[in-house]
Amino acid sequence: MSQVAVYPHTEPAMINGSFKGKDIVSLDQFTAEDLQVVFALTHKMKQIALNNEASRLLEGFVISLLFFEPSSRTFGSFASAIKRLGGQTIELQNPETTSSVYKGESFEDTIRVFEAYSDALVLRHKVAGSAMLAADAASFVPVVNAGDGNNEHPTQTVLDLYTLYERFGRLDNLTGLLAGDVLNSRTLHSLMRGLSLFKNNTVYLLAPRQLQLAKDDFLSLSARGLRIIEITSEREIPRDCNFWYWTRVQKERLASLQEYQEVMKSSFVVTPELLDAYASKDMILMDPLPRVNSVDPAVDKDERAVYLRSQIRNGLYTRMALLTLILGRA
Amino acid sequence: MSQVAVYPHTEPAMINGSFKGKDIVSLDQFTAEDLQVVFALTHKMKQIALNNEASRLLEGFVISLLFFEPSSRTFGSFASAIKRLGGQTIELQNPETTSSVYKGESFEDTIRVFEAYSDALVLRHKVAGSAMLAADAASFVPVVNAGDGNNEHPTQTVLDLYTLYERFGRLDNLTGLLAGDVLNSRTLHSLMRGLSLFKNNTVYLLAPRQLQLAKDDFLSLSARGLRIIEITSEREIPRDCNFWYWTRVQKERLASLQEYQEVMKSSFVVTPELLDAYASKDMILMDPLPRVNSVDPAVDKDERAVYLRSQIRNGLYTRMALLTLILGRA
Amino acid sequence: MSQVAVYPHTEPAMINGSFKGKDIVSLDQFTAEDLQVVFALTHKMKQIALNNEASRLLEGFVISLLFFEPSSRTFGSFASAIKRLGGQTIELQNPETTSSVYKGESFEDTIRVFEAYSDALVLRHKVAGSAMLAADAASFVPVVNAGDGNNEHPTQTVLDLYTLYERFGRLDNLTGLLAGDVLNSRTLHSLMRGLSLFKNNTVYLLAPRQLQLAKDDFLSLSARGLRIIEITSEREIPRDCNFWYWTRVQKERLASLQEYQEVMKSSFVVTPELLDAYASKDMILMDPLPRVNSVDPAVDKDERAVYLRSQIRNGLYTRMALLTLILGRA
Repeated sequence: MSQVAVYPHTEPAMINGSFKGKDIVSLDQFTAEDLQVVFALTHKMKQIALNNEASRLLEGFVISLLFFEPSSRTFGSFASAIKRLGGQTIELQNPETTSSVYKGESFEDTIRVFEAYSDALVLRHKVAGSAMLAADAASFVPVVNAGDGNNEHPTQTVLDLYTLYERFGRLDNLTGLLAGDVLNSRTLHSLMRGLSLFKNNTVYLLAPRQLQLAKDDFLSLSARGLRIIEITSEREIPRDCNFWYWTRVQKERLASLQEYQEVMKSSFVVTPELLDAYASKDMILMDPLPRVNSVDPAVDKDERAVYLRSQIRNGLYTRMALLTLILGRA
Repeated sequence: MSQVAVYPHTEPAMINGSFKGKDIVSLDQFTAEDLQVVFALTHKMKQIALNNEASRLLEGFVISLLFFEPSSRTFGSFASAIKRLGGQTIELQNPETTSSVYKGESFEDTIRVFEAYSDALVLRHKVAGSAMLAADAASFVPVVNAGDGNNEHPTQTVLDLYTLYERFGRLDNLTGLLAGDVLNSRTLHSLMRGLSLFKNNTVYLLAPRQLQLAKDDFLSLSARGLRIIEITSEREIPRDCNFWYWTRVQKERLASLQEYQEVMKSSFVVTPELLDAYASKDMILMDPLPRVNSVDPAVDKDERAVYLRSQIRNGLYTRMALLTLILGRA
Repeated sequence: MSQVAVYPHTEPAMINGSFKGKDIVSLDQFTAEDLQVVFALTHKMKQIALNNEASRLLEGFVISLLFFEPSSRTFGSFASAIKRLGGQTIELQNPETTSSVYKGESFEDTIRVFEAYSDALVLRHKVAGSAMLAADAASFVPVVNAGDGNNEHPTQTVLDLYTLYERFGRLDNLTGLLAGDVLNSRTLHSLMRGLSLFKNNTVYLLAPRQLQLAKDDFLSLSARGLRIIEITSEREIPRDCNFWYWTRVQKERLASLQEYQEVMKSSFVVTPELLDAYASKDMILMDPLPRVNSVDPAVDKDERAVYLRSQIRNGLYTRMALLTLILGRA
């Protein structure tokens, strides 16, 4: 979408205990205390969903799901979150082909039109910065960033942190192994920023040579208090990790198919054997999905594999909580 | 859709105070009194929406949104209208690619199938006359025309008239400036027909030479009692207009890109300077959107610019009112 | 979808009076008694729909409609069924273009993700066997097959059988004429299997030479107790048929356009004249739609033509009943 070209300079407001009406654009709006508020409500949301309660928490609210980029999983998670609470949706998938966007309307105008119909906007867009742009354009209703290119996907990180919190009862004193595309993965970078909000966390980074953490990122994350240890072989994985977080190598990020094939030769896949050799009995194995050459399906049966269990379900529950908070119904 | 080839000869029934079960195909079905009924209910609908009331007015009703042509704005407005009243939708966007239409089913069969699932049908289609064809095919449930090519888009005109009515408390004794594609714009033509239902209205028409009103239209609208004055320069705009209604030049209507560029040289764009020079303090500036080379975004801040404020919101409220009326829940 | 390649060997569980939590993958899961249970509930559902009752039977449930293949009619029928009972949906049309499927996610992973968001999955897919594959992948929620290629479309057959049952008060001692693509039609084959669950039914098969029933199918259906009589000319149609069930010749099944044109020369179309000559006064004429060169629109006015009346409406009512049963709310 050529209209979204300028990365906006506005910063989203910190939440600082006051959720109502706030945009959710970046993980950096959350303090550790804010996350605790979300987690407490998430626990209640889980009961509503598991019991199929006829909740009316969001009754009377209409929320637009503006998915300019396809993402069936995130779309389904938000749609379910809203509807399980008695809310309603306006759903646009690929509005560039089904909308006035094709008539040359500006992005801001589209946002302001849907603002007039809705009580909140959930935006997915391939252009980095588009969520902040939308939040600036929408003066009256909150905007939730459901992924804006390689920039942010804050609700993904909130669900990841909740998954750790639910399992271990804390978000400090954790040790994790982060693997895959450590250089580019938006998910891994956000998770590290999230972990750095809490004390005494350590991450081991395991990546092919071409996909290791950039120096700048290493320095800024370390400065936030996160202990980072880079390793280059599976044999260096410590036995006491609380969690492994695996990500796929994103073919679309690499310059050529040849480079992708080169990287894949030295990339790491979780197999039952790898778990047997290096994972502790009470760790959990996470993956943001889709898992393509990241986790072998043979691992699915292992109880420690939560990517298709609590991790995906927690996406639903945390989104229920976040929407309820920003709509002032908590 | 080749199946919709014949312009039907049936005329939709006049409303004449009796909304329940009526199709809404054309603005010409409404008397001035019918519009007053819609406006009175629209005012109540506005309160429901602004207060996020958990309305159940349309509970138990399922309404099909059959958008054979993309139109995200109109789609979103109808979807929100239905859901804010507790109704439900069946949503088909671009059914020509997602439906049995591609298996060669006739348009009438598609309409009759969705009639069997629904309590009303909202139809958007690029072929003029398709809404009347659908209304004829659907014997049991009302059909609402959400735009059938260059023919009609009656709910757009109802919202435009309501916007004027809400602002000025009347629909007679108004003076307006209509600008842009005066030759082709469906919206402008319908608005003029709507204004002609009321007494003593005057419109000034400002258009590039190639896009001025056709003689036939001038004569028929004048015969209905509308006073029409054609002007060719911004300097002729009278200072006492109650409203300006701007429309874009529709590139798709012109024979070539060259013709479009030629027209655009002499087309008119609303700027802050133009407003300062010719607009009164208490007028309103309207645009049916998308606004592409019609209104400069620098104008948005001006309180008189209602196109992204009350005009777009009134689309929601008037559709809530119209659906409630034809479904017999008013 | 290349991921769905292997036809699964699992058989879906028989219903045998216990609907709650069951997948609905094949008509062969139903006993005659199971169908009677569905029919009894269908009758109640019809009243809910016709009276626009604000039913809350499925309130608190979110059901995913995963339509990997376009089918607007079946999609609309399921959407309406769920929403008329107060349930909610997650709707994916053509998820291969709007989803992580395009990122290389396996079919089973997609199913398991949507299982985590939903209380049931309704699947439409062009690959035969995909519904059973989905039912195997989804461990916690029921899967309803809304058509998997040329394999099964069980809710279509349930609605066909209900249409006969509602009209004649029985499903035994019936005589039917089945016409069109007798060789390939999934619908006709399932209907014959359904009729064979009841006693003393007879079907006459009328098809072009190239589209007659395969020997194997003739033998297996006969062995189930269905009396099958093949005829080759309209003049052999017996006057006492309770129903005619017409199907279109499916162009996409034939090797070439030439072969299609050849077949069409000797194919059969229902006309008012054919009905006059061979149909009894109280028979019904059915067609699963779309009807393309199968039933002449001139027949629509005839009261015996139920394809756009009770047959299509019964699809809504039987789906309401089936979903209520498998979700344990009956």
